[in-house]
Parts: sequence; structure tokens; C-alpha cells
Amino acid sequence: MLQLYYAPNSCSLASHIALEEAGAPYTTRRIDLKNGEQRSPEYLKVNPKGRVPALATDRGVLTESPVILGYIASSFPQARLAPIDDSFAIADVQAFNLFLTATVHTAFAHVFRPTRYGDGEATAAAMRDKAKPSLHDYFGLIDSRMSDGRPYVHGDHYTISDPYLLVFSRWLDRADLGPVDKFERVAAHRKRMEARPAVQKVLAVAEA
Amino acid sequence: MLQLYYAPNSCSLASHIALEEAGAPYTTRRIDLKNGEQRSPEYLKVNPKGRVPALATDRGVLTESPVILGYIASSFPQARLAPIDDSFAIADVQAFNLFLTATVHTAFAHVFRPTRYGDGEATAAAMRDKAKPSLHDYFGLIDSRMSDGRPYVHGDHYTISDPYLLVFSRWLDRADLGPVDKFERVAAHRKRMEARPAVQKVLAVAEA
Repeated sequence: MLQLYYAPNSCSLASHIALEEAGAPYTTRRIDLKNGEQRSPEYLKVNPKGRVPALATDRGVLTESPVILGYIASSFPQARLAPIDDSFAIADVQAFNLFLTATVHTAFAHVFRPTRYGDGEATAAAMRDKAKPSLHDYFGLIDSRMSDGRPYVHGDHYTISDPYLLVFSRWLDRADLGPVDKFERVAAHRKRMEARPAVQKVLAVAEA
Repeated sequence: MLQLYYAPNSCSLASHIALEEAGAPYTTRRIDLKNGEQRSPEYLKVNPKGRVPALATDRGVLTESPVILGYIASSFPQARLAPIDDSFAIADVQAFNLFLTATVHTAFAHVFRPTRYGDGEATAAAMRDKAKPSLHDYFGLIDSRMSDGRPYVHGDHYTISDPYLLVFSRWLDRADLGPVDKFERVAAHRKRMEARPAVQKVLAVAEA
């Protein structure tokens, strides 16, 4: 049985949705980030990096969203959450996901948790001033690569990139970026995702 | 034919080494980061994100080091650069690589290119003050997960994590972190890597 360690408002939402969409048998364990449970000795035994998500499997613990997403897609091939038999196509899916991890998530972290990167109010303000236009650029890039009239990140077929993008399109609400309506395809994608039964089920548990 | 877009002192070194170790047929194209070639219209057509590495294949361009590394391992299975037929084992390899991407590379970027994250000298100094102890923690974590007496990141078998770790163990030299000798296994790994003929061949081209 898989067990997902997750936290509200975190990127673990993507793995949570993917487990649900895959029809995977899984349990969850909520980690209380606000009270620092991710740094508790108990949790550091699960994930020494002190972050969520972590996915406990019968062979060990996996970490990092794109890795967990890829593992879910491979483990439940009947759900067709990624083109796992095509090495170029799966790499292309993961390149999108890695951009979310390395660039988009990192920029949001400078807005939400600037103290991870530097102390002091002035430093935090300088990082926010830089991260916000960067996020505009990044979402502009994402919007421009999504094609009109095709419902998912990679076109007609739902993949592990879809719940992962949803994490960050939802974060736009609390990043105080100003008007984000211009990312029309991203906004439409979010709406489409939030209408899915699996997404609604997970949101009711994970973000409550 | 594969073509790798690379730059000296960048993380493209890992993909470059992996291509060489795989015995892949490939060509290279150096991008002059110092003069901003990564933002030239010509290069933005290759990689709209304006970063290296990028790997042009006959089906399109792939980006992001762990993705390119995974694609090389899958495309040249005889080189056995990753346990590509075992979905847990390959995920475990990529979880290590993602830690390098999302956490270690990001911390180095705050030391080397703080203006990416915030303007001003005081901001840069604050980010460096935070990144350096973070890097100590991260290398401590890496060192502790490598086992004594086993030569590679994941044990007895060379994988795509080995050239990727080499990128960052080499960056320690220029990050001014103070004594890094205490990361004994990381230091021994670097030495072992730099003795490999494929690594020496690539270093002579890429870092010249």
C-alpha cells in the first residue's frame, strides 16, 4: 500500500490528485507544516530533506513531485497518466514538470517563504519585487505553449503535468501578482481541472 | 544525431559526460552565457527558457538536466546508466537528481547569480549568507547517504547521478564555502569521477 505524506497548500496536491486519478490504493498522512512537523525526528526518518510530498512504497520512500508523479504513472499504466512507453514523449512531459519544479516553484517560494533564501524585511521585499515579474514571465511562457482548443497541458490527453500545473495556477491567487487574467489558457485549464471529480475529492480532503 | 547545447561552468556538464559515457553519437554547440547568447532570438527558438543544457533530438528539443540524463539512459540502454526497467529504482535515482536540481543548484544560484532573485548588494549579501550554510547542510545530507567503500552515488553501479553530482562538487571550489574537506565521500567521489577517461575528455572540451 502506498502512503502519501502531504500538506495543505503545498505541491503535494499534484501527487495526491495523481493517486486518485490512477485509481491507486493509497492512504495519506497530513504533515503540519505550520507547526514544523516536517522537521520532527519522526518525519525526518521518512524524508531527511524535511519536505512534502513523500510517498512511502513497499520498497522505500520516494520524494520530489515529478519523481512521484512519474512513479504513479509507471505503476498504474492502465490510467494512462503519461506516455511511459515512449522515451521522448515521457521526457517531454517531465521537462514541463521540471520547469514547474526548478523555476516556477522556486519563484513562488521567494514570494511565500523568502526567509528560506535570506534574512530581513528588506531582503524579502527585494526578492518579492523580483519574483513577481519573473512569475509573470513564466506563466506567459506556459500559457503560450498551451494550445487553444486542446484541454490539457500536452494536448488532448490528460497527463501528470495537469495536476502539477494546477498547484501553481491555484498559487497565483495568493501570490498577489496583480491581474493574472491574461493567462487565459492557464485560467481555463484550472477551471477544467477543478471540475474533475477526482480533483474535487482530493481538494476536499487535502485543502480542508 | 543528438546535439547538446552547453556552456562552461554550467550544469550541462552532466549531460555532456552522460552522452560520452553512453557512447552516443552527438555533436555540441557552445552557448556564450557571459555575452548573453542564451537570450538571443536564435537560441530562444531552441529553448524559450533561455537556459542550458538543451538537447536537440530528431523529435524535438529536451531541456532540464534530470530529463536529458534520463533520456540518454533510456536511449542507450546498453550503457546501463540507470535502472530503466525498474520503476522504483529509476525513481530513486531521479529523486537524488531532483534534489540536486531543485535544492542544491538553486542554492548555488543564490551564491553565483543573486541578481536572478533580487536586486542590490545588500540583498545579494543576505542571500549568500543564507545559501552558504544551506549548502553545507545539503552536502552533509549527500555525504551521509553515500556509503563508505562503494564508489558511486547509488552504490556499486555508475549511474546518471554520478556526473550530475560532479557538477556540484566542482562548484564547491568557487562558492567560497570555507573548508569542505568534511564531505569526505563527496570529495572522494569527485576524484574518482575526474579520473574517468570520458570525464577527462569532456572536461577538456567543455571547460576549456
